[in-house]
Amino acid sequence: MEKKPYVIGLDLGGTNSVFGIVDANGNVVESVSLKTAGHGPLPHKYVEDCVEALRPLIDKVGGIGKIQGMGIGAPNGNYYTGCIEFAPNLPWKMESVPLAELFSKALGIPVAMTNDANAAAMGEMAYGVAKGMKNFIMITLGTGVGSGIVVDGKVVYGSDGLAGELGHVTVETRDGRQCGCGRKGCLETYCSATGVARTARQLLTDTDRPSLLRDLPLDQLESKDVSIAAGKGDALAKEIMDFTGRLLGFACANFACFNSPEAFVFFGGLTKAGDLIMNPIKEGYDQNILKCYAGKAKFFVSELDDAKAAVLGASALGWEA
Amino acid sequence: MEKKPYVIGLDLGGTNSVFGIVDANGNVVESVSLKTAGHGPLPHKYVEDCVEALRPLIDKVGGIGKIQGMGIGAPNGNYYTGCIEFAPNLPWKMESVPLAELFSKALGIPVAMTNDANAAAMGEMAYGVAKGMKNFIMITLGTGVGSGIVVDGKVVYGSDGLAGELGHVTVETRDGRQCGCGRKGCLETYCSATGVARTARQLLTDTDRPSLLRDLPLDQLESKDVSIAAGKGDALAKEIMDFTGRLLGFACANFACFNSPEAFVFFGGLTKAGDLIMNPIKEGYDQNILKCYAGKAKFFVSELDDAKAAVLGASALGWEA
Repeated sequence: MEKKPYVIGLDLGGTNSVFGIVDANGNVVESVSLKTAGHGPLPHKYVEDCVEALRPLIDKVGGIGKIQGMGIGAPNGNYYTGCIEFAPNLPWKMESVPLAELFSKALGIPVAMTNDANAAAMGEMAYGVAKGMKNFIMITLGTGVGSGIVVDGKVVYGSDGLAGELGHVTVETRDGRQCGCGRKGCLETYCSATGVARTARQLLTDTDRPSLLRDLPLDQLESKDVSIAAGKGDALAKEIMDFTGRLLGFACANFACFNSPEAFVFFGGLTKAGDLIMNPIKEGYDQNILKCYAGKAKFFVSELDDAKAAVLGASALGWEA
Repeated sequence: MEKKPYVIGLDLGGTNSVFGIVDANGNVVESVSLKTAGHGPLPHKYVEDCVEALRPLIDKVGGIGKIQGMGIGAPNGNYYTGCIEFAPNLPWKMESVPLAELFSKALGIPVAMTNDANAAAMGEMAYGVAKGMKNFIMITLGTGVGSGIVVDGKVVYGSDGLAGELGHVTVETRDGRQCGCGRKGCLETYCSATGVARTARQLLTDTDRPSLLRDLPLDQLESKDVSIAAGKGDALAKEIMDFTGRLLGFACANFACFNSPEAFVFFGGLTKAGDLIMNPIKEGYDQNILKCYAGKAKFFVSELDDAKAAVLGASALGWEA
């Protein structure tokens, strides 16, 4: 059966719910945004309000008959159940929020759900740098470190729909940093935006080396400030980017032992530093990669428009829903 | 099309090449073994001699028409190419030995190849404790640590056919042990049979604690001796098993972040220690597993007959060849 021309993507965040109607080339042809909260304690009214906002957009592209399916990217979104499970920052006071089913009933089209990082991987495969790839690893560098692992052209969901949490692989086995997950030494305690700020604060506190970063209040220091200072040639800031990138490259070398990917694709604020972060990633990788994989994987930064990437990623699920 | 009643398995080792004709229930109904070396520098004569030895067995089960396919488990066997790549301990002086193709031509049936650990995973899925499982990780504890990763019911081969080298994931990031691969701190430097002997020698040298292990010459100490001493209640030997198991459990907790497996299946000499190794593995896992995966994975020891497991694993490939 021929695919219909459009899919709907929903990027469901703690604050905003952003919808896009997307064509096969990754153009967001229609878009609308609602606040995620304020629709009552149960998700039913939320879905109703969303569908009401979507209707005129759907009509504009020729009606629901033109829509192949819908994809939802949401924190803790489970592909197998179509539910958001235990997401403390969302308004619904339920253990498991069956949004895929609710949207599917309301719209009359198939709806699939997954978490943000898996959605990002789908987006890269459908419209981005991973087009045509069968085996790659998506790494999202945000407040945390997320990942989507693709094997044989499909995102790995594992036995429970929750596979692909590479941000919580241990990268420091001695006195590792405390992670929000309760464990120590997780990748995301070092290589997320939060991790970079943490490294900066630590270096600024433990040494008296000069740095442009000292012009900023220590407790307000962000990953972005480190990128900017590194871009200006600040030695300390460059060292932080080096440390972060090399550690991430080391981690990726370990990840390669799992699915021998043809590429790693990075997304998120930290990638804005360009070569300042990507070169150390590649160096860390090359220095630590097992011989049989050496020189095989490529390293990409996502080229999808930041503002649209999450909606695009979610929409990509709609093609297979 | 209905499956034929038998497959052929070849367990290709540095010393012996063991063939089995296997039925769908995992019974090795016929078997023959040849020396791997001594057939000349090219693999053609080896294949010819093997097929000659196989003919009478094939006739016994009703001829080649009763054979679905053949599977080869070999060190550095590549599933995609059907070739053995860079195997220094095998007699053929070629970079890439196309055994799958040669056997397929000689026998007139489809032939697939993979490495030993992937074959073991296939064997568990076809005839063993992983029957019916879709997502699990096979860990083989031998001279090295091998692995076969199963996602969605299929072994993960990755972009180049060489995926699944979890024995070379770093488990000690500070002053890790030197590994044969040239890197440091790999899982197999600690949790292989060789790694266990290494731990024993280290503890016996660095301390003067009493132990039954002191009755043996230090340089001849093997993993098996540690198991036996631990079984007799030797405190030092038990501590070695504890250390080994906990580290392996920690590593498995990190592996879970990839494919959230429903089970880990262990095979190899070290598993003979039973609870002495399996309990610490589970403890190490439980202490280090990310909350969302906690309590989900089961831990199994392979129940396949040691002497037949490798042939069974190889043969399992034959069903899908």
